[in-house]
Amino acid sequence: MAIIMSIKIGILGYGNLGRGVEAAIKQNPDLELTGVYTRRSPDSLKINTEGVAVRSTAELEAGRDDIDVLIICGGSATDLPEMTPKYAALYNVIDSFDTHANIPSHFANVDKAAKKGGKIGIISCGWDPGMFSLNRLYASAILPEGKDYTFWGKGVSQGHSDAIRRIAGVVDARQYTLPVEASVNAVREGKNPEFTTREKHTRECFVVVEDGADKAKIENEIKTMPNYFADYDTTVHFISAEEMKRDHSGLPHGGSVIYSGTTGEGNNHVIEYSLKLDSNPEFTGSVLAAYARAAYKLNNEGVSGAKTVFDIAPAYLSAKSDEEIRSHLL
Amino acid sequence: MAIIMSIKIGILGYGNLGRGVEAAIKQNPDLELTGVYTRRSPDSLKINTEGVAVRSTAELEAGRDDIDVLIICGGSATDLPEMTPKYAALYNVIDSFDTHANIPSHFANVDKAAKKGGKIGIISCGWDPGMFSLNRLYASAILPEGKDYTFWGKGVSQGHSDAIRRIAGVVDARQYTLPVEASVNAVREGKNPEFTTREKHTRECFVVVEDGADKAKIENEIKTMPNYFADYDTTVHFISAEEMKRDHSGLPHGGSVIYSGTTGEGNNHVIEYSLKLDSNPEFTGSVLAAYARAAYKLNNEGVSGAKTVFDIAPAYLSAKSDEEIRSHLL
Repeated sequence: MAIIMSIKIGILGYGNLGRGVEAAIKQNPDLELTGVYTRRSPDSLKINTEGVAVRSTAELEAGRDDIDVLIICGGSATDLPEMTPKYAALYNVIDSFDTHANIPSHFANVDKAAKKGGKIGIISCGWDPGMFSLNRLYASAILPEGKDYTFWGKGVSQGHSDAIRRIAGVVDARQYTLPVEASVNAVREGKNPEFTTREKHTRECFVVVEDGADKAKIENEIKTMPNYFADYDTTVHFISAEEMKRDHSGLPHGGSVIYSGTTGEGNNHVIEYSLKLDSNPEFTGSVLAAYARAAYKLNNEGVSGAKTVFDIAPAYLSAKSDEEIRSHLL
Repeated sequence: MAIIMSIKIGILGYGNLGRGVEAAIKQNPDLELTGVYTRRSPDSLKINTEGVAVRSTAELEAGRDDIDVLIICGGSATDLPEMTPKYAALYNVIDSFDTHANIPSHFANVDKAAKKGGKIGIISCGWDPGMFSLNRLYASAILPEGKDYTFWGKGVSQGHSDAIRRIAGVVDARQYTLPVEASVNAVREGKNPEFTTREKHTRECFVVVEDGADKAKIENEIKTMPNYFADYDTTVHFISAEEMKRDHSGLPHGGSVIYSGTTGEGNNHVIEYSLKLDSNPEFTGSVLAAYARAAYKLNNEGVSGAKTVFDIAPAYLSAKSDEEIRSHLL
């Protein structure tokens, strides 16, 4: 048996995703959490791992010996474009950057910094982008004459929930994205249909409002909100704060990538990858933890620069030896 | 735009799988079939690609310049253990070796030969082993506290069909393996059940017999055949040769890998990868073609030795550039 060396992990940012990464680390004996880093006052944070320090992000500046991989749990809008390149110069880093249009420039920025520092920077890791992307790639490489479909849900969209919360009179909101089952089934049957936005997903909203708020007005504001809701069939339910807490405090999500392609004389093949997740941040955190192991191993082999899930051989994700995975999983 | 250089492919063995690889090559403009190699008399073979030579395997002996990757489409029982190491010394090779217990020794033999020749030898490629293996690995690396289940079917098992054909009085046979839907659903619900062999799959047989054959005796011989049928609920249908030809000449297959794991305080996650294939050999051939591209690229980078799907970064499978896949598939 090889001796398992602990890989020392730092978590930057302690929201839902940071806690998800923390939970994942506890399930992996070869990973060790050595610190949580926050822009808030460190004293204000109580974390779920005994004996691990909470420190200010300022303490990351000089480069620390107790971090093999820094997992950056920030937002894609403003945090990650700044943080990931910055820390990639000093540490192996991973993020879950998901602003699709900006992936090329984010990749270039992280690549430059990571190569300069001799580190690995894995960007856009999680399940979409992440595991869903992998399935789009594998399927299209195997069946070049085909088409991929991605459906999301049933799951909570934080962005859409936040958009509802910004409406005057709204106290709290939870928005679920749901795939249209008939459309999913048409794809599964290999029909290669074309869909409008409305035909792929519906949106269901649970909303708590202030006493005396104009519900009809709020419902209309939600349903007609451009980009977020106007292009979808949207349902709005007004509920109490107690119901919100009781029935909607989880963050489930999931979805599927379905690829339909043909070979030979019209033989059809359907490849489907689907996720049903009780906790989106805990699953995403688990993906990040597995790729932290990969970042560490790759960097130990002398590899540096920006990487995505496409660039990393699957064996690097596993805590098991190559012999073990060949014997038991192949 | 990068200039697409053709990767020159040889196919060794021209049965169902060889023809499946041939069909796949036609869909990939960067792959070019330069020869089909056979142990039969080359004159006896008529292939589906105009202008491509059929040659004797003897012509492979000296090492040919017109093969970048040799795809070996032989049987796992006796062909591949001998062929893959032999040709790995001379060519980049790929096989679909699927005798699970012998993977470690096959890997070692191919590794030794391939390293000596400075070539790549990818073994056990296809969908199981292959794409299913990848999904077992990714899922277990992400969710270490969980369990994987593999279900096969509905699909034709060639080995079981052959076993029936060996019974006296049987003219032809086709055996379908079917997953037990209730068991699949129990796994999907995250119940982590334990199954007996009988609880996971059933077997359905379509059999053509000689005139005057004792059907009751044949049915009993099938149902009690050790290893193949005795541990399963098996159904036998006697049909005419015409019905066999009309209804059972395809080679569909498929199945699913379902992984159920937990994180945090009992949050459950279900990952499901499923295939529904009209033609098992054409899909398997398409996987081999994509990995042929990977073998070529890796060897061009100076990599040699035995590899499996676990060792190969997904980007190597694609004909598209890294920039393109990051922009469109991530």
